[in-house]
Amino acid sequence: MPEKIADDSVGLVTPQRQRFTEALHLDCGRDLPEYEIIYETYGQLNAQASNAILICHALSGDHHAAGYHSMDERKPGWWENCIGPGKAIDTHRFFVVSLNNLGGCKGSTGPNTINPETNKPYGPDFPIVTVRDWVESQARLAKTLGIEQWAAVIGGSLGGMQALQWSLQYPDKVRHAVVIAAAPKLSAQNIAFNEVARQAILSDPDFHAGHYYEHQVVPRRGLILARMLGHITYLSDDAMRAKFGRELREGTLNFGFDEAEFQVESYLHYQGRSFVDRFDGNTYLLMTKALDYFDPASLHEHDLARALAHVTAKFLVISFTSDWRFSSARSREIVQALLHDRKTVSYMEVNANQGHDAFLLNIPQYINGFKAYMEHVAAEVNNDV
Amino acid sequence: MPEKIADDSVGLVTPQRQRFTEALHLDCGRDLPEYEIIYETYGQLNAQASNAILICHALSGDHHAAGYHSMDERKPGWWENCIGPGKAIDTHRFFVVSLNNLGGCKGSTGPNTINPETNKPYGPDFPIVTVRDWVESQARLAKTLGIEQWAAVIGGSLGGMQALQWSLQYPDKVRHAVVIAAAPKLSAQNIAFNEVARQAILSDPDFHAGHYYEHQVVPRRGLILARMLGHITYLSDDAMRAKFGRELREGTLNFGFDEAEFQVESYLHYQGRSFVDRFDGNTYLLMTKALDYFDPASLHEHDLARALAHVTAKFLVISFTSDWRFSSARSREIVQALLHDRKTVSYMEVNANQGHDAFLLNIPQYINGFKAYMEHVAAEVNNDV
Repeated sequence: MPEKIADDSVGLVTPQRQRFTEALHLDCGRDLPEYEIIYETYGQLNAQASNAILICHALSGDHHAAGYHSMDERKPGWWENCIGPGKAIDTHRFFVVSLNNLGGCKGSTGPNTINPETNKPYGPDFPIVTVRDWVESQARLAKTLGIEQWAAVIGGSLGGMQALQWSLQYPDKVRHAVVIAAAPKLSAQNIAFNEVARQAILSDPDFHAGHYYEHQVVPRRGLILARMLGHITYLSDDAMRAKFGRELREGTLNFGFDEAEFQVESYLHYQGRSFVDRFDGNTYLLMTKALDYFDPASLHEHDLARALAHVTAKFLVISFTSDWRFSSARSREIVQALLHDRKTVSYMEVNANQGHDAFLLNIPQYINGFKAYMEHVAAEVNNDV
Repeated sequence: MPEKIADDSVGLVTPQRQRFTEALHLDCGRDLPEYEIIYETYGQLNAQASNAILICHALSGDHHAAGYHSMDERKPGWWENCIGPGKAIDTHRFFVVSLNNLGGCKGSTGPNTINPETNKPYGPDFPIVTVRDWVESQARLAKTLGIEQWAAVIGGSLGGMQALQWSLQYPDKVRHAVVIAAAPKLSAQNIAFNEVARQAILSDPDFHAGHYYEHQVVPRRGLILARMLGHITYLSDDAMRAKFGRELREGTLNFGFDEAEFQVESYLHYQGRSFVDRFDGNTYLLMTKALDYFDPASLHEHDLARALAHVTAKFLVISFTSDWRFSSARSREIVQALLHDRKTVSYMEVNANQGHDAFLLNIPQYINGFKAYMEHVAAEVNNDV
């Protein structure tokens, strides 16, 4: 619980819901006849609706990107470092929209919501959704909010992939795309890590082929393993060394398997256990597939420059030197394709030893560069007025 | 099954056993009252017993390092690339000893062998063994074989740690230590990967707190996950890209979770499944703990140079550019400590994109450099004669 909400926080926020009754045709070939999207907004939409920013979340993110749902909430939204009055995404100047993606588990229609056709949770019957599907659903949300064009679509990691996809799926509706710690597609190693996480969940006897809701259990063991593994890939080797080294929890080896011995084990256990209480196994599976499948160049003979040929957005691409999940080289693939197409792109490689997690952290070089870019975006908006 | 055994293979080999009835005092404080070691030998011990080489195995290795157990055996021993007539470890010149370590599952006393005190498998009651304990048990084996001093102790990965430990635990008994793709201790990230693998096994309901033998099951799901994860760390990102890329098994996405879609998933599934049939879960746990605990500098105020101060062996240290499990930087820590102590050390960094697995592969720069060094070792042996 915050004793007092900081002045540069958006403060207390209330999620909103939007219901859609027009069927959404999905990449997998299936239709989602109706669905709900839960979202939050921060700041005020201007009269011209020209100052709207879309925030796209990563694998385990959700709509709660900034502020607090109540004075009892222990921590603010996941991107409090970047969203708020005077921050990089300045809520004095922008109207910020942040939603939970379809297939999520925080309120938007997904595996843990009721399938109206069966009156039971969708569970494993929820269709596999892609980044393209998400952009489609986000475009419909924009329409209901009266937003014809985003001043910027912004995201980190899987969120960055959505920003990239927006720029090519709706070139007229995105003025700026901010793609942070992302990649134009997963590598074989990225897919491999996702597959180990999926198998951990799928092979958990409590998974019950995805119908665990009806058994009053969750695939706890599998989700814990998936999250532990995820955290290894979110931190750099250096960051783990700096954070934990080979420090022992109790000072001495205990020659047993019952307890975490090294601090790093204890950290992973904590991350795994706390994740189970707030995330859904079927959603985890869906999110990893959306990651694996994302590959916009595949529709253009694996030529990313061709895939981005009709993009009109201006880009800010940001990467972090110690990110080994999506290394700077992966961001440079995007930058090079855009440059090849003579698009407008700014690229910032941030010196940071925190690994992939850096995109969520308060790192001055990152925040200042991001803020400078967003001030430029805000100035454009004001000229529009 | 080999149609014909190659001329440069040691050919058909028969494992041997040695029983030890003097209790072995272990690092964990417990005594192992009696135990057996299974081992193989290749080549002939010379009259002076000066041409003996000890091969130390890695996490999932065993005593069967070269040749074939029968004409029905599909593949030769795990280091056939390096051991045989005319090879780097030339069995015309050396007497090679390769054993299964204590706690292993291929014939030496371990969790899957019978505890004489209970007449049931040791299972989880088998004590945690360390690299130091292994060296102690290997020294006893050397004694029974009439070997006062090894011409060389050689190993890759966890095997390299044993070679390093030999040089400081029994400085008079090792003329050369060949430490390949190893590290002087695990990093926090290395420990983290081990811990995820352990939790996969420990949390498998079929693990039965380690007593699964009595339930006629094995912790199959956990072992598969552990092995899949292991294989990600054995291959480099580049090697995975070269080997699998984003190739789909059936050419198109299938939008489901039932089948492996990408080739890399299929590879990991195969590696996981085949591992279950040949490896024991309790042994996997023990091997990862031996890795985690190895840290000879910890007894010398975390100063590796001090730990190695009394070493008399000459060293060959080999690392591989794309190995991210134990990077070249980790090998250089060993080299620098030895140089600080004014010891004799040769260091070879091999350009190879195969990752940690490279130490098992037939890579000319590696094999040739290794062979040249071993010819020098053989020449020393002959001068002794």
